[in-house]
Amino acid sequence: MSSNNPKQPSDKLWGGRFTRTADALAESFTASVSFDKRLWEHDIRGSIAHATMLASVNVLSEKDCEAITQGLGEIANDIKAGRFQWSDALEDVHMNIEAALTEKIGEAGKRLHTARSRNDQVATDMRLYLREETDVILEGLRQLQCAIVGVADREADSIMPGFTHMQPAQPVTFGHHMMAWYQMLVRDHHRLTDCRKRINQMPLGAAALAGTSFPIDRRMTAELLEFEGICDNSLDAVSDRDFALEFCACASLLMMHLSRMSEELVLWSGALFDFIELDDAFCTGSSIMPQKKNPDVAEIVRGKNARVVGHLTALLTLMKAQPLTYNRDNQEDKEPLFDTVDTLKACVTVLSAMLPGMEVKREQLRDAAFRGFSTATDLADYLVRKGIAFREAHEIVGRAVHHGIENAQDLSEMSLETLQAFSGRIEPDVFDVLSLEGSVNARSHLGGTAPERVRDAVRAARRQLGEPE
Amino acid sequence: MSSNNPKQPSDKLWGGRFTRTADALAESFTASVSFDKRLWEHDIRGSIAHATMLASVNVLSEKDCEAITQGLGEIANDIKAGRFQWSDALEDVHMNIEAALTEKIGEAGKRLHTARSRNDQVATDMRLYLREETDVILEGLRQLQCAIVGVADREADSIMPGFTHMQPAQPVTFGHHMMAWYQMLVRDHHRLTDCRKRINQMPLGAAALAGTSFPIDRRMTAELLEFEGICDNSLDAVSDRDFALEFCACASLLMMHLSRMSEELVLWSGALFDFIELDDAFCTGSSIMPQKKNPDVAEIVRGKNARVVGHLTALLTLMKAQPLTYNRDNQEDKEPLFDTVDTLKACVTVLSAMLPGMEVKREQLRDAAFRGFSTATDLADYLVRKGIAFREAHEIVGRAVHHGIENAQDLSEMSLETLQAFSGRIEPDVFDVLSLEGSVNARSHLGGTAPERVRDAVRAARRQLGEPE
Amino acid sequence: MSSNNPKQPSDKLWGGRFTRTADALAESFTASVSFDKRLWEHDIRGSIAHATMLASVNVLSEKDCEAITQGLGEIANDIKAGRFQWSDALEDVHMNIEAALTEKIGEAGKRLHTARSRNDQVATDMRLYLREETDVILEGLRQLQCAIVGVADREADSIMPGFTHMQPAQPVTFGHHMMAWYQMLVRDHHRLTDCRKRINQMPLGAAALAGTSFPIDRRMTAELLEFEGICDNSLDAVSDRDFALEFCACASLLMMHLSRMSEELVLWSGALFDFIELDDAFCTGSSIMPQKKNPDVAEIVRGKNARVVGHLTALLTLMKAQPLTYNRDNQEDKEPLFDTVDTLKACVTVLSAMLPGMEVKREQLRDAAFRGFSTATDLADYLVRKGIAFREAHEIVGRAVHHGIENAQDLSEMSLETLQAFSGRIEPDVFDVLSLEGSVNARSHLGGTAPERVRDAVRAARRQLGEPE
Amino acid sequence: MSSNNPKQPSDKLWGGRFTRTADALAESFTASVSFDKRLWEHDIRGSIAHATMLASVNVLSEKDCEAITQGLGEIANDIKAGRFQWSDALEDVHMNIEAALTEKIGEAGKRLHTARSRNDQVATDMRLYLREETDVILEGLRQLQCAIVGVADREADSIMPGFTHMQPAQPVTFGHHMMAWYQMLVRDHHRLTDCRKRINQMPLGAAALAGTSFPIDRRMTAELLEFEGICDNSLDAVSDRDFALEFCACASLLMMHLSRMSEELVLWSGALFDFIELDDAFCTGSSIMPQKKNPDVAEIVRGKNARVVGHLTALLTLMKAQPLTYNRDNQEDKEPLFDTVDTLKACVTVLSAMLPGMEVKREQLRDAAFRGFSTATDLADYLVRKGIAFREAHEIVGRAVHHGIENAQDLSEMSLETLQAFSGRIEPDVFDVLSLEGSVNARSHLGGTAPERVRDAVRAARRQLGEPE
Repeated sequence: MSSNNPKQPSDKLWGGRFTRTADALAESFTASVSFDKRLWEHDIRGSIAHATMLASVNVLSEKDCEAITQGLGEIANDIKAGRFQWSDALEDVHMNIEAALTEKIGEAGKRLHTARSRNDQVATDMRLYLREETDVILEGLRQLQCAIVGVADREADSIMPGFTHMQPAQPVTFGHHMMAWYQMLVRDHHRLTDCRKRINQMPLGAAALAGTSFPIDRRMTAELLEFEGICDNSLDAVSDRDFALEFCACASLLMMHLSRMSEELVLWSGALFDFIELDDAFCTGSSIMPQKKNPDVAEIVRGKNARVVGHLTALLTLMKAQPLTYNRDNQEDKEPLFDTVDTLKACVTVLSAMLPGMEVKREQLRDAAFRGFSTATDLADYLVRKGIAFREAHEIVGRAVHHGIENAQDLSEMSLETLQAFSGRIEPDVFDVLSLEGSVNARSHLGGTAPERVRDAVRAARRQLGEPE
Repeated sequence: MSSNNPKQPSDKLWGGRFTRTADALAESFTASVSFDKRLWEHDIRGSIAHATMLASVNVLSEKDCEAITQGLGEIANDIKAGRFQWSDALEDVHMNIEAALTEKIGEAGKRLHTARSRNDQVATDMRLYLREETDVILEGLRQLQCAIVGVADREADSIMPGFTHMQPAQPVTFGHHMMAWYQMLVRDHHRLTDCRKRINQMPLGAAALAGTSFPIDRRMTAELLEFEGICDNSLDAVSDRDFALEFCACASLLMMHLSRMSEELVLWSGALFDFIELDDAFCTGSSIMPQKKNPDVAEIVRGKNARVVGHLTALLTLMKAQPLTYNRDNQEDKEPLFDTVDTLKACVTVLSAMLPGMEVKREQLRDAAFRGFSTATDLADYLVRKGIAFREAHEIVGRAVHHGIENAQDLSEMSLETLQAFSGRIEPDVFDVLSLEGSVNARSHLGGTAPERVRDAVRAARRQLGEPE
Repeated sequence: MSSNNPKQPSDKLWGGRFTRTADALAESFTASVSFDKRLWEHDIRGSIAHATMLASVNVLSEKDCEAITQGLGEIANDIKAGRFQWSDALEDVHMNIEAALTEKIGEAGKRLHTARSRNDQVATDMRLYLREETDVILEGLRQLQCAIVGVADREADSIMPGFTHMQPAQPVTFGHHMMAWYQMLVRDHHRLTDCRKRINQMPLGAAALAGTSFPIDRRMTAELLEFEGICDNSLDAVSDRDFALEFCACASLLMMHLSRMSEELVLWSGALFDFIELDDAFCTGSSIMPQKKNPDVAEIVRGKNARVVGHLTALLTLMKAQPLTYNRDNQEDKEPLFDTVDTLKACVTVLSAMLPGMEVKREQLRDAAFRGFSTATDLADYLVRKGIAFREAHEIVGRAVHHGIENAQDLSEMSLETLQAFSGRIEPDVFDVLSLEGSVNARSHLGGTAPERVRDAVRAARRQLGEPE
Repeated sequence: MSSNNPKQPSDKLWGGRFTRTADALAESFTASVSFDKRLWEHDIRGSIAHATMLASVNVLSEKDCEAITQGLGEIANDIKAGRFQWSDALEDVHMNIEAALTEKIGEAGKRLHTARSRNDQVATDMRLYLREETDVILEGLRQLQCAIVGVADREADSIMPGFTHMQPAQPVTFGHHMMAWYQMLVRDHHRLTDCRKRINQMPLGAAALAGTSFPIDRRMTAELLEFEGICDNSLDAVSDRDFALEFCACASLLMMHLSRMSEELVLWSGALFDFIELDDAFCTGSSIMPQKKNPDVAEIVRGKNARVVGHLTALLTLMKAQPLTYNRDNQEDKEPLFDTVDTLKACVTVLSAMLPGMEVKREQLRDAAFRGFSTATDLADYLVRKGIAFREAHEIVGRAVHHGIENAQDLSEMSLETLQAFSGRIEPDVFDVLSLEGSVNARSHLGGTAPERVRDAVRAARRQLGEPE
């Protein structure tokens, strides 16, 4: 029996019990190596830690442990160099690597799997993988936040219309709008950081489901693999996939935020808003309409929200009503998770690269803010300060706006007499509050849109981000 | 300017307007050729039909048309032979093929895109692709139905417990259970057939969105491409993706059915039910527990339900609130659709192959049916026929069952005297209805579980499937 | 033991077997009458048909049948008049009505449940309910389509910018855009009509799961209830919920379309597009910004897409991997379905009412169409007709547009000399194709945006809708 | 104009601008009071805090503040007593309460809305509501954990088969299985606790979107309402709904866990497993099959997983690509959230009540564990300790199991000679490891299934739960 002929059942490492060869169809249907080979580095790292621990408790000889460690190191080099032959017949990343190891070092390779199972092995690999990728994404998020804060700083004074119901409502500053984006991402950062704690727990030692009869030292393995904690129950350790589901939930919220930002970039760069100009490098043209400059990157980020939500739904559907412990269905957890990771990294990176080159068209923003009676609230507040109850002030301003619409006049363009026709309490100082700057500067409380508040927020953000203020 | 240097903007076919080179990051983020190259055959077929039509209305010369047709044929051969060089810099399958065509045949290649746009082109490719795959899946479904009907025929007399609430309820035949599976798939077949009508409509001619100023003959192109109809509105033609969404909805229902069947296969093949034995070829063992025979194929099918539901959710999320017409987000429609198609084909095929080899353990099924007072309803019906109102009969039987549980006796094992203690209407003929066969045979109306009805259903199914009865 | 004290177990109609009283907590957790009482009318209709059939096959006496029919008629009147006392202790709509019937007519009431079970009863009620509501929704859809076609007719000549990537691309007519909406809804109408066939199948006669030992005549019951067909397999009949899932899938696609239309209404009515003015009755103001006119109805319709997608996901999750046949989980199918029905009816109705009063601002539309070089494609097509290959024509136009952007000049505003600098093939007739009307009229093929085509489409639609042309 | 006639536009508090009355259809479509009145207590609490703060910064007189506080207190009493008249014409909970206040106290009521908007008001109400409900759910979870730990303690020595692939794999203890459930809920508790931090931030002061021109003291209001922090950006404060989405994501994971537990309860209580007996109070019978005892509560909990996943999907779909800041779509966030809260509370409560009465059938569990060669792994481990490499040991055991299947003999039932035929290393001490107790006790490392470890885990859990050990 030799590993050169993987179709023979006894070559399948679990093949002892079976009397027929595996049907090729079933083999290709069940094999996972095409996608789980992505875990090779974590699989090898986990195996080395496992062997080291086994040797320390005398389940493995030092010699075997050294052979295993060296063999796995060579395999890692083979894989990196593209020399490694992956085989569907060997099912998955674990079996592929173990078979290669045994081929390389003989008997000792067959001892590696002592006191573990693929069930705790794959759960460990997934957690090592996801912990690493979470760190990459957290750093990517930080860079995106830096890019946003950079624009906020630059545009702290640029006045634009703030929108509710997609309608211009009140003047705000572009910098303030950027800092809203920043805050959204702050929460995403916190959520992922909280999630990382739950990712970073070690299942190894749970073996198939019940633990093992060997005197393993799980704390040692956990230390070698830099896990914060150990899964406290062996059945749970091999069944639990909520670290992956929670990650995908965090990812869905993050992508929801990126889709909202992208929607705004698409709208703002369109001819009818014309608030910004995106860098040509992040846009494309049309094959039939040469004049078009399409915000493709923003559109695709917006669209990619969908796939991440889809992956979360897939994982929630997958785990629904699964009895403990490991079921083969769980093999289906990997592709959605991997694609979620890839999507997050790509979106965060491309937006970080695109935002600094975004040109803000301050004139257009200001014009748009001026239209639409955006200081109507300021007039109402003015009247309240003059002693009118808010709800009455609101009705008075409503009538003034109505007049403005019919006469195509902004409130600030009406004469004092015209304004006084709506309320006798209006005095010449009203024009201070009807200007865009007056409106914006007046909102100077914590969290308000006044430029000074935006600059405070920028400084605080840079402190959080570890950037020079 | 040469196609050897695709990084120069003018090599991007829409590059005239731009003054800066495309950023490599954006290029790799937006390129779709890695997945949409799957459409190459349909893209070429569509282009040939388009060129033929253009020639027939004198927008293209016959000579150009011939050059295009021949050039595309050569490209098809190159792709099939694995000689074609796909390039991310050329973005997508359409541009890759068109650039290769122009390289091959010169000027004429640059005329092919007259009177169309990538917007109507990609929509056409997708529909041709999905029409073809739908036909493959419909045939796969038919084969799966044949396999199920085969088992139903073989097991028309095998008595098993029918379940409600996962509890044995009444005896049924295994063949009847199989025919329930069959009926589920009948509806899936009808749904996909209905969906195919809506897939099979031609968008070509919509160009970017508004149609074209060339005198195109859309009916001719539709005929060449065997479309049943033509999209009646150009804006809708390039925006509409509901053919893909409807397909994914049909797919989700089909996979829901396959997950239900798989759940039963997993339960039935488990040691505690022990109703069936699956073919070894479709099971695997355990790396740590050599005695295990795991129903991996059934588990994975059950799990794959999740990814298809995820893809449907992704597409619904993708299209939500998109303003007309084409937006680049729509590029994200392909991967979920392609994976849905692949998943359906794989699951339907593997189950078709697995079911005929499933061994039904008739003894165990019968034993299980006997346990659990499964003929209690028959006793109630018997009492009704003796003149007792149903609800009273129900209470009488409830008391008899209670007695049976306390004395570990089935109803059929009680003496006549014991039974008569619950109701004086009970006579010796009661034992006819308390047997499993008596119970099953009595349900002989249309849709009932009696073996003769199952055989009728098998015959009717074979007629529907075009199989010999 | 009396029905006045429903807490006693024997009052629960299935209570014979149990020795302890139902815990109040469990009772309120499992009771469904608070929502399934909505099915009362269909439940009564089904029971009358069932009793009539039982009498015809002599399982029920004519006298009992008459008592049942009359008793149920009185109960229907009580419910309509708000006099009926629903009780959680009686669990569901079926038990509430049956208990009231027995209270009213005595013994005969206890005979009604002969040869059926709540499993086939509830499935029948659901299908009768959904068939009726589907018809209501189909008619609502038709009215919405009529409203859209009315606007299309009125605005067949109104030129607006057609969008791709949310950017103005080419001029189209507003009527053409409306007819794109119409076409979206045509598919929804077809899908729901296809779905209705699968809803309209009768489960009654399947009893709990296996059929019944009484000589029932299912064809007769089906005829009385106007079902097109009979569920062919009893196990499937009580397990199948795909009629509800398919309905929710159709609903999700319809709501996706309504969300796209609503998104456009929101954008168009916003100050920066300013294409339309919605009727005040369908908008609201702001509590703090008196100048705002918010398109609330359109926003809420857009938002309601979400709940329908959520309900579809819920039902797909619910049914995943459920073994046959009926499981109590299925009680959870009702609320998502009911809310989907209500949402569809409300959205379709409110949009039908709102659209006729939408004012289209033709001047603004025309201005917007004029900006953005929307006839660039026409210039490219012109050059092609002059013998230049499309891809070259595309580059030439790209350069002209570039010039236009730098000089703030539309193509139609450039002098002949300027244009000729980009290509010597340009002649004075170029200005015919650079006008908005020229562009739109040129797209006169089937499905194109030319006003004459729009009018054709309007006429065809009115024929389909059964409206006067 | 008087508030007795709410159909007049000026009675709508934002009505000044409008010239037509609100269409009844639109009114009922857009009104939210039917569901958002649930927030009344939090709305009143928020208003009192707002008024108190306004008085402290002299925007409101002390007298007005007192009138408002007292008026709102009276309204609270009216609502509690069921005397309050809710009106659709007044749209929502905020307007209903404010209108009643003004009716009660006159002018002062019209001053309450100074320096805020419904946008920040509703966001504040939602957070106060959700914070309170989260605390209720956390306590419910704790009680459920206590119930589980109680069973674990009682059954720490009860041996059952542990499952992988729904197949018996190795013996474990029932207590260990319970502690796996406990661990799942530990993570849910942590997730909700993390989420609560992000819920507990105050939006008030953001007003409509930009903040207000009044000199508000947000820190004071936050302190009065016991918020941990203040939303740092006004635009974000009114747009952000991720506190609700994160809560629903946590809820989906929790329900996923409850569905897994419920699936096991359903399987275990079924006749073919027969591992447990659920308390009658939490089961129901069948209307047609009097012998059935259905685990309805567990089934419904399993099913309710679906609605919570649906609600999460709905909220993710709702927020996708929404431009800032508040859009009316967001009204649709409430019903899914409210229903999620209700579902969680009901499921957690009913399971807590049901579990203590669950009878564990120790004999049956033991029998089931004995079947299925569940100590095969122990034999393999034994061979490894005798010096055989794991993979070889695995093959040897495979052959022994094969022999056992063919001869219907467990490994522990084979003679020493028979066993030695598979490996010469086997000695008489092998029988120590082949017993169920031997197997279970051997897994005594951290997280293993040995009874002593289970008792340790129970003690640790009780410490975490604040229960007596």
